[in-house]
Amino acid sequence: MLVFTTDFGLSDSYTGVMKGVALGINPDLRFIDLTHQIAPQNVAQGAFALGVSYRYFPSNAIHVAVVDPGVGTSRRPILLQTPHGSFVAPDNGLLSRVLSDYLPDPSTSLETVEVPPVLRAFHLTNPDYWRHPVSSTFHGRDVFTPVAAHLSLGVAPESLGEPTTELEWLPLTPYRVTPEGVGGEIIYCDVYGNLISNIPASLLEGGELDEVRIRGRSIRRLSATFLDTAVGASRPDLVALIGSHGYLEIAVPSGSAAATLSAGPGEPVAVTFLPPCV
Amino acid sequence: MLVFTTDFGLSDSYTGVMKGVALGINPDLRFIDLTHQIAPQNVAQGAFALGVSYRYFPSNAIHVAVVDPGVGTSRRPILLQTPHGSFVAPDNGLLSRVLSDYLPDPSTSLETVEVPPVLRAFHLTNPDYWRHPVSSTFHGRDVFTPVAAHLSLGVAPESLGEPTTELEWLPLTPYRVTPEGVGGEIIYCDVYGNLISNIPASLLEGGELDEVRIRGRSIRRLSATFLDTAVGASRPDLVALIGSHGYLEIAVPSGSAAATLSAGPGEPVAVTFLPPCV
Amino acid sequence: MLVFTTDFGLSDSYTGVMKGVALGINPDLRFIDLTHQIAPQNVAQGAFALGVSYRYFPSNAIHVAVVDPGVGTSRRPILLQTPHGSFVAPDNGLLSRVLSDYLPDPSTSLETVEVPPVLRAFHLTNPDYWRHPVSSTFHGRDVFTPVAAHLSLGVAPESLGEPTTELEWLPLTPYRVTPEGVGGEIIYCDVYGNLISNIPASLLEGGELDEVRIRGRSIRRLSATFLDTAVGASRPDLVALIGSHGYLEIAVPSGSAAATLSAGPGEPVAVTFLPPCV
Repeated sequence: MLVFTTDFGLSDSYTGVMKGVALGINPDLRFIDLTHQIAPQNVAQGAFALGVSYRYFPSNAIHVAVVDPGVGTSRRPILLQTPHGSFVAPDNGLLSRVLSDYLPDPSTSLETVEVPPVLRAFHLTNPDYWRHPVSSTFHGRDVFTPVAAHLSLGVAPESLGEPTTELEWLPLTPYRVTPEGVGGEIIYCDVYGNLISNIPASLLEGGELDEVRIRGRSIRRLSATFLDTAVGASRPDLVALIGSHGYLEIAVPSGSAAATLSAGPGEPVAVTFLPPCV
Repeated sequence: MLVFTTDFGLSDSYTGVMKGVALGINPDLRFIDLTHQIAPQNVAQGAFALGVSYRYFPSNAIHVAVVDPGVGTSRRPILLQTPHGSFVAPDNGLLSRVLSDYLPDPSTSLETVEVPPVLRAFHLTNPDYWRHPVSSTFHGRDVFTPVAAHLSLGVAPESLGEPTTELEWLPLTPYRVTPEGVGGEIIYCDVYGNLISNIPASLLEGGELDEVRIRGRSIRRLSATFLDTAVGASRPDLVALIGSHGYLEIAVPSGSAAATLSAGPGEPVAVTFLPPCV
Repeated sequence: MLVFTTDFGLSDSYTGVMKGVALGINPDLRFIDLTHQIAPQNVAQGAFALGVSYRYFPSNAIHVAVVDPGVGTSRRPILLQTPHGSFVAPDNGLLSRVLSDYLPDPSTSLETVEVPPVLRAFHLTNPDYWRHPVSSTFHGRDVFTPVAAHLSLGVAPESLGEPTTELEWLPLTPYRVTPEGVGGEIIYCDVYGNLISNIPASLLEGGELDEVRIRGRSIRRLSATFLDTAVGASRPDLVALIGSHGYLEIAVPSGSAAATLSAGPGEPVAVTFLPPCV
């Protein structure tokens, strides 16, 4: 099974051609499109999509991830093997959020990280498993997909290239934990206009919520659902909840929080907790 | 085979993640995307897409339909079994057009209908077949898709929940049949700008057409094709025909009727017949 | 394997319904979407997408290509068999770029061409292999897809219709080769804003490049990659390269050439070579 995450869009024939090439190598492959609509060349957005999704796939899934502004330059093509799937991708930070689940310090702001012991990484250097001639502008078709298809046939990773111990790292958008609460920001806006922050659910268990602040608006409790209403209260026009990605999310019931607040990625969000009882 | 109809769009990873979860339960599943581009939370549009499409799939198709503004609230997750496929969906009217094919009176304006004898419906109450933890905002991933995947493995519907005899109903847009003709309205506009009305083909067999009126324009005959020309006549700039969905459709040859008429869903359409010969 | 190329878009249920119909005929079929986002009724754009892509699919691929403004009129439904796959399509020029790879003179401006000896073409006249009733506005569902599905089951082409020796031809956008260079034009703009010309790579081997001119801008060398930089030079804001389709392509590193130049299909591009040494 190949799972594609790219910024190729759906208008051009790029994604279809990759699948044609893959079936020429392994006719039994099946394909899942995680998304082809990453904003062009937005590596951080691609890293987010992969990071919040890969654990929902079987562990034999092979991800082909291509958001690759440096295609054809010296950036390396890599294979990363994890307990929850394999990833074929350019070494440009696209796998940072996957990697972060295994790093001792995922808040690092370095430009590279060491491959954690539970993972294995390979620099894909063996052209025997590529499609030739290799276009210098479409490694998705000529390098990443052929390698993934050969991997699906049982080719050993060691045959595809050299083990590597260091990978490019794209630092995660940082949040600040203070005694009063957490300061973070919106990192993604979905099709409904739900605003997804970088504040993980676990941090909201740190105290009793006082308020969530965004764009001058205050939300005083966490809702369980988009349409949640407190008993006896009127339906709120803005809700905060733990979204399905596992992060604090701001939503408008049956509407768009992005449109209502004129907010998107980069917007600050602050969570404050009530002082603990003395 | 799972067939997906959702308002999840194609930018986010929601649809890919559902497929990953399904393959984790039944690795032999195949997927068809009917559409993920239902307008956000537009249950009526989702009901239309399902209603005009489901009969084209094999009868062993399992539809996963998720347009679900009330996700996580008290609205019930249901399974509906029909002679032309099974449907896993929220009980919010999304299956109304499918149901309407089996109801004694599909023009009812009630809020619920009884399940007709030829169908079977179940309230999905057995969490053994869900993914855990269940997000309160993404039952597509955690309830509907896992249930559909288990169903594809042969799990008995009775194991998935309790039989139910009443379902939510979203009344169909009504049309009026008079001795002179039929008054209806546009209910869907497709990618070409073709305007699809709620007037079924069968009603146009009720007499000899006098005219079709829309936005002050008059069309005097039914065309067979988008490019139809009467012998000896110049090509019309606006045509009326029986569209592939089985409803009266207004089109512009090699153009967009929606743009030409500045019309969309909700626009009235009137059909009048010639008086019968005396 | 069926490979779809259509202008049906992704919002409507048209593409899903075709797949449902196909699975009703051959439940083992697999589907690849080359693209459904050809601009509505733009036969030339569909021909380009097919022409630059079909060779990447296995030779047993069956292409279902539907950009069909004349659906239901006298234009013929055809099957074209090539060494690199079979094509089921309307006979309206949609297969011109595929055909051009086998024609003695692909620069012809005639309205029809003879089927070259290495190919076989059939007029699909046998309704036994169609879905009934046949809608006069959706042959994708009722003619092309059922025929392709039966073909995948091993039905002989001769059973599907009559051999035909002439096909409709949509002349390719012409380029002019002069002693000084080549004059062509942009014929496609992809999702990144890369501008793809009709000047094939082979013509650029005709001499030593002097310059590529487009919209008054001059590019003095061919780059190898989108991010290419000459040693010691600053990164150019506009590059020319041989794109992955095999044509001269104009790009902006990490940006959009279409936006930067306000240019799109139809824009002239001129290549001049240095005079040969005397």
